[in-house]
Amino acid sequence: MALLLDTLGDRVLLGEAIPESCFSDWTGHAACRPLALVRPTSSEEVSRLLRLCHEHRRAVVPQGGMTGLAGAAVPNADSVAVSLSRFTGVESVDRDAATLTVRAGTTLEAVQNAAREAGFRYPVDFGARGSCHIGGTIATNAGGHGVIRHGMTRDQVLGLEVVLADGRILDLMNSMIKNNTGYDLKHCFIGAEGTLGIITRAVLRMAPPQGETHTLLCGLPNYKAAVALLHRLRGAGLALEAFEVMWQDFYTMSCDWRDSQPPLPTSHAIYVLCEAEGDANHLETALEAAIETGEVADAVLASNIPQAQALWAIREATGEFPLKLAPINFDISLPIPTIGDFVEAAGEMLQQRWTGISIVNFGHIGDSNLHLTVDGRSLAEDAPETHHAIEAEIYRLVGEYHGSISAEHGIGLLKRDFLHHSVRPEAMDVMRALKHTLDPNDILNPGKLLN
Amino acid sequence: MALLLDTLGDRVLLGEAIPESCFSDWTGHAACRPLALVRPTSSEEVSRLLRLCHEHRRAVVPQGGMTGLAGAAVPNADSVAVSLSRFTGVESVDRDAATLTVRAGTTLEAVQNAAREAGFRYPVDFGARGSCHIGGTIATNAGGHGVIRHGMTRDQVLGLEVVLADGRILDLMNSMIKNNTGYDLKHCFIGAEGTLGIITRAVLRMAPPQGETHTLLCGLPNYKAAVALLHRLRGAGLALEAFEVMWQDFYTMSCDWRDSQPPLPTSHAIYVLCEAEGDANHLETALEAAIETGEVADAVLASNIPQAQALWAIREATGEFPLKLAPINFDISLPIPTIGDFVEAAGEMLQQRWTGISIVNFGHIGDSNLHLTVDGRSLAEDAPETHHAIEAEIYRLVGEYHGSISAEHGIGLLKRDFLHHSVRPEAMDVMRALKHTLDPNDILNPGKLLN
Repeated sequence: MALLLDTLGDRVLLGEAIPESCFSDWTGHAACRPLALVRPTSSEEVSRLLRLCHEHRRAVVPQGGMTGLAGAAVPNADSVAVSLSRFTGVESVDRDAATLTVRAGTTLEAVQNAAREAGFRYPVDFGARGSCHIGGTIATNAGGHGVIRHGMTRDQVLGLEVVLADGRILDLMNSMIKNNTGYDLKHCFIGAEGTLGIITRAVLRMAPPQGETHTLLCGLPNYKAAVALLHRLRGAGLALEAFEVMWQDFYTMSCDWRDSQPPLPTSHAIYVLCEAEGDANHLETALEAAIETGEVADAVLASNIPQAQALWAIREATGEFPLKLAPINFDISLPIPTIGDFVEAAGEMLQQRWTGISIVNFGHIGDSNLHLTVDGRSLAEDAPETHHAIEAEIYRLVGEYHGSISAEHGIGLLKRDFLHHSVRPEAMDVMRALKHTLDPNDILNPGKLLN
Repeated sequence: MALLLDTLGDRVLLGEAIPESCFSDWTGHAACRPLALVRPTSSEEVSRLLRLCHEHRRAVVPQGGMTGLAGAAVPNADSVAVSLSRFTGVESVDRDAATLTVRAGTTLEAVQNAAREAGFRYPVDFGARGSCHIGGTIATNAGGHGVIRHGMTRDQVLGLEVVLADGRILDLMNSMIKNNTGYDLKHCFIGAEGTLGIITRAVLRMAPPQGETHTLLCGLPNYKAAVALLHRLRGAGLALEAFEVMWQDFYTMSCDWRDSQPPLPTSHAIYVLCEAEGDANHLETALEAAIETGEVADAVLASNIPQAQALWAIREATGEFPLKLAPINFDISLPIPTIGDFVEAAGEMLQQRWTGISIVNFGHIGDSNLHLTVDGRSLAEDAPETHHAIEAEIYRLVGEYHGSISAEHGIGLLKRDFLHHSVRPEAMDVMRALKHTLDPNDILNPGKLLN
């Protein structure tokens, strides 16, 4: 500690001075006061910190806005937490190149605002935008709304600056689209959850602002029809901004929670909420054809913004889950054609073992992403074993379907012991070898992602 | 050799039986007969080959369609060349997921055809499509036409199967868009030019077929106006399929080579050939505004396919360069706002040192990519030192402009000694560490990309 204070002085907080906000993330999992909290104000200070911790084999836990959902930023009592919250700001906006250069501690919202002020948009978006750090979104390869059109955070990153475990500063601050000069090292650090280096700066792409969009809710006979509709809309000369599939149980429950009349009757097996940019005629032509073939049984097109918001409110019932259900949430991916079968198989499997349990489902199907929620109200309270058993069963089934146990939230602590369902042993070995090469003393976020 | 024949039998060719086509790539650089040519018919055979070569520390040079432009697939006399030409075919097409599963030896054209037959397109395209292997396009992260809209090859790859240097088969055959389960290892092998593993299979994304497109040629007062036009068109609700910028020297020369009247007078400083999908009204509105602000001085919109082809013929004069010039070609990237200045600086620098030399320029500016061609007719013949000196000067200048010495062709042998102009020493060290981790005996394409 004396060395740490010598090296980084007033950047260091100890004991009671460490704010509780850095004890755990949004899951509240395993909250713990770290040995120290260091808040560097430059890449060089991050470098000095890591060099010291590397020499003394002291664990370092990188922290962003603490909005993670997998426990990747949770410290333990022996670790030094490092927060980039004092290394913030958009360093430059380049309208000609359509790029932004940002510091890791900048919030996602500040990045979005800077892009908007320049006449663009930064297309990654999700609920935690006001708190999460852009560095954290890169370290976790965050998804959220808009992935169907713009891709994940990885797809927005052109360049990175990363401090390696031994304190070396790795300058990968590329701003070019085409650049085939050797291994594209930035991809090692994107989505690595702070286990291979600490991201300090980034060059990000901006997208043009959103044009006129249309919002549509459809009732469909089955999941297969939803996949057919996705295919049809993709070929209709439109830019799909969202394609949210809600299963009947989800739709019915959400409509029950609202005062108003459901926009479509609750009798359909599947509902699709779709947002598309482009020519309204293209959308109407595609929709007519879908109705003719029976893919779509019924549909309502929002004719103004309040109507569109009312349609979105049905899908956004997920925000009410913590209050109204005892939710166990899953963020999983599956090959698109199999998602319908998976939902049925998961429901049956859970019912057989835990009678009376129910699941509600929606998914960003165009991105292969299913958000399955188990309503745990019928289970005994305080049953972490049951919770864990349900997770184990669902992730085992995900593995059988060749799916991914983490679509967008990452692995962290909470999914680490299930990783083998989605990653083969040889790949796990290569991950470990990469970790050992870049962090031989295992100081960077040890125990996260890999065990 | 006896061991090799024992292990792989009739997959092995020796001595005179080895076809000349595997001695060098399209550059003809350093042509050499390898010790042996092995043509495995499965991933398991690739695995057996590599296990053997790993044990005996024998260099292995992976080969695709031999259409590379950087010498990455050129063997030497002590190495075993391995060609995937007998491991071919599209294994499956999944219309619901919009994905293809392919073997590495399949030609790009066969992949494009399979996508087309399924009602999609595989959007990577360039001249070598009929010969190059899809595995080679992944190993070199090929670019080509369409990058402005669809990205590089890297952006099409969802999953890979790779055989590691020691023969382990790494199954990364993901087919999902969202999959955050640890380090995304496929990116280590994409663009690594066969130095970290041999790619044997891949899962690729397909795009919807191209819709109605419009082709437009504009004359502009300067490079800055071209960047402004790019920005304007991107915000006009159109999907840009191409944005090809030709400097006056290029345009004038190309028009001279054609019989017909130039579509626009040769008096403009910059010409932009643009192809856009979407509403013609949007394009016309944007164009009118660009004319009003002075960004665009003159323009012609093709009203039918032959007219569009005639406009493209001007840009495609590059195909005649080898016959009509003594071209020294550069495939470089630069930050978009600086490309205009770079072209001027490069021209002046070359003129000062080699009086009478000229350059012709065009670029995929939306991708940061400049194709600068030095016309070497004024230089003495058979002057490899001059050729090398010109390369050294251009790449040095690229480094000064924080550009990339390889936009899309890769490093291979031909650019290896210039790599330090675009890659910092720390990054080079990390590349070497990664290489040593994955290929400790340095058998995979030794001496390529890194030295």
